[in-house]
Amino acid sequence: MESKKSLGIVETKYFTFAKGESPMLLESGASLGPITLAYEAYGELNKNKSNAILIVHALSGDAHAAGFHKGDKKAGWWDSMIGPGKAFDTDKYFVICSNVIGGCRGSTGPSSLNPKTNKPYALDFPIITIADMVKAQKELIDYLGIKRLLCVSGGSMGGMQALQWVASFPEAVASTIPIATAWKHSPQQIAFDEVGRQAVMADPDWNQGNYYDGRSPERGLSVARMIGHITYMSDESMEAKFSRRLREKNYSFTFKSDFEVEGYLRYRGDSFVKRFDANSYLYITKAMDYFDLSSGKLIPKGKTIDTRFLVLSFESDWLYPAYQSREIIQFLKTRNVDASYCQIQAKYGHDAFLLDIPEQTHLVKHFLSATFKINKVKS
Amino acid sequence: MESKKSLGIVETKYFTFAKGESPMLLESGASLGPITLAYEAYGELNKNKSNAILIVHALSGDAHAAGFHKGDKKAGWWDSMIGPGKAFDTDKYFVICSNVIGGCRGSTGPSSLNPKTNKPYALDFPIITIADMVKAQKELIDYLGIKRLLCVSGGSMGGMQALQWVASFPEAVASTIPIATAWKHSPQQIAFDEVGRQAVMADPDWNQGNYYDGRSPERGLSVARMIGHITYMSDESMEAKFSRRLREKNYSFTFKSDFEVEGYLRYRGDSFVKRFDANSYLYITKAMDYFDLSSGKLIPKGKTIDTRFLVLSFESDWLYPAYQSREIIQFLKTRNVDASYCQIQAKYGHDAFLLDIPEQTHLVKHFLSATFKINKVKS
Repeated sequence: MESKKSLGIVETKYFTFAKGESPMLLESGASLGPITLAYEAYGELNKNKSNAILIVHALSGDAHAAGFHKGDKKAGWWDSMIGPGKAFDTDKYFVICSNVIGGCRGSTGPSSLNPKTNKPYALDFPIITIADMVKAQKELIDYLGIKRLLCVSGGSMGGMQALQWVASFPEAVASTIPIATAWKHSPQQIAFDEVGRQAVMADPDWNQGNYYDGRSPERGLSVARMIGHITYMSDESMEAKFSRRLREKNYSFTFKSDFEVEGYLRYRGDSFVKRFDANSYLYITKAMDYFDLSSGKLIPKGKTIDTRFLVLSFESDWLYPAYQSREIIQFLKTRNVDASYCQIQAKYGHDAFLLDIPEQTHLVKHFLSATFKINKVKS
Repeated sequence: MESKKSLGIVETKYFTFAKGESPMLLESGASLGPITLAYEAYGELNKNKSNAILIVHALSGDAHAAGFHKGDKKAGWWDSMIGPGKAFDTDKYFVICSNVIGGCRGSTGPSSLNPKTNKPYALDFPIITIADMVKAQKELIDYLGIKRLLCVSGGSMGGMQALQWVASFPEAVASTIPIATAWKHSPQQIAFDEVGRQAVMADPDWNQGNYYDGRSPERGLSVARMIGHITYMSDESMEAKFSRRLREKNYSFTFKSDFEVEGYLRYRGDSFVKRFDANSYLYITKAMDYFDLSSGKLIPKGKTIDTRFLVLSFESDWLYPAYQSREIIQFLKTRNVDASYCQIQAKYGHDAFLLDIPEQTHLVKHFLSATFKINKVKS
């Protein structure tokens, strides 16, 4: 069944801009260029270019949202939601996903070569914000000839980017689906990010960010990822998955991993460091912590926007609790925006948005279909 | 007002046992000796020794539960609850508190000298359990000539020891007040502990536990403590205390601490490493993870006990959620134990048990007073 609905083999493409004398101005005042965005695109762009959807990824995501890279056994990170007949139906829509700037999966980030030194940027890479990520994505969308996206959607930091699209380029977005997200990080969310950063920076191999010609700070990054994983799951889902099951028959009475949950976390930490750059982890979490579209910044007072919203949260998500989604929707209602909110019952915590939750699929599918129809009538 | 109710100057005492040929047998099968317990005692033991209360501390606590050490400006860790006229009223009761074995605040632990080598034990210290901690405390109580404690009480890991007293020595405890605790760690709780341990062990200065003659793993232990602190507070209390307030006027666009919450966590991490031994952190968290009195182990089937219970939890405590206290109380009801449960409204998360919460004070005071009366009638 699943293979039938798969996109099959897909490829990552690259788009480079802000070359030579025209670097991109960042929110910090610094500028960055040239900038390369790694991106993938699935489905066909229709004649009037009205069926394009931009998918935006979370902290550790990348451009490879769906289908398979040649030789890979693992599909893209949102394959459950993107493909023929799926929520983001590639039989109907042209679906784009790009790796964020600051990332390490093909887009320009701290591990990229600094053209001025011909060495990796490391901490010479400027601090980037969610608005900078979106500004770069807009260049890609312009390059693809798309004036108005049918939808921008993503979960967690993807949801932040989806909201930022509305704040930065409201005319360019017919609809948005921010999932399991917030319009600003709470101190608890900042705290978890900061501890992750401290874990990385506490590793002597981090070496103030200059580790690209030596050992990378794998132990620190692994600890950061382990912390992250606990916050992505729920107490309930961890109980269901691990309970207090032991890896061996009895307690070892040593500091080895006795419990399955310990082995799982170590495994997730160890596998993460093989695919992720520690400096990117610092830059991207900092961007999330700086993000703040509260207090009217999402839609300035007096401004009318024509973007439909579907805001989704998950009951068991304690990292991005439902009240953060409700804050957004309550604000949208005061601005007379066409906005719906659904809290989805799911036990998997924050990670739920990545999974094949029938209610999420159903809601997204119908929302996109309705938006497409409304858009057609208008155009 | 507060100074009036203070115990004033108190002193730590030391009790050594399991000397020479009679070491203490541990749950793991290993033995340990000699064992020193650091302890403090406040108030007067009455003639028939029926007014003794044992206070048991949490992960980072110690024997210094109340009053002031000479020259100190900071009172003991539960000074809000222990003293003349306070919940544990030293005008009425004889209150004892000892540092757990495995600790680093005067009791025998991994930083103590191994008599066999005349060097610190480090990882040659045997793995200890909550039952071992309690077994050592029983030696102290015997030494003090107390046959039956009026009460054993503590929060968090202190609550585990309070429960363990009932499991190990039911005849020796007239009542117990386990607060903000669980009778077994959930996989989420194990996971947070394990990440803390991994943070310590990832620090090269940890050096497989052999750091006593060099630099100690302060960076790793600091990260572990920062993680802990997030879990001790609630989302709500962090919002009230920090919100998104910045330390400077604007974002720094660097990896410095921008937000007050970041500065606070770094400060708490840095100050912890000055007073706590990293190996003790490993041993004590492991003891908490191993602890499991579920499935009837708290009171074996067919056994009748004469210990009264007051189980307390805090509404905003997401690290030791209320359902864990309810599990205990539901079990006690099936065993016909005189047991009450109260969930206390407080916004401060797990840390609430350490604070001066009037409802906690009130409940403890009346429970102790009733227990004392009942005990008198019986004896």
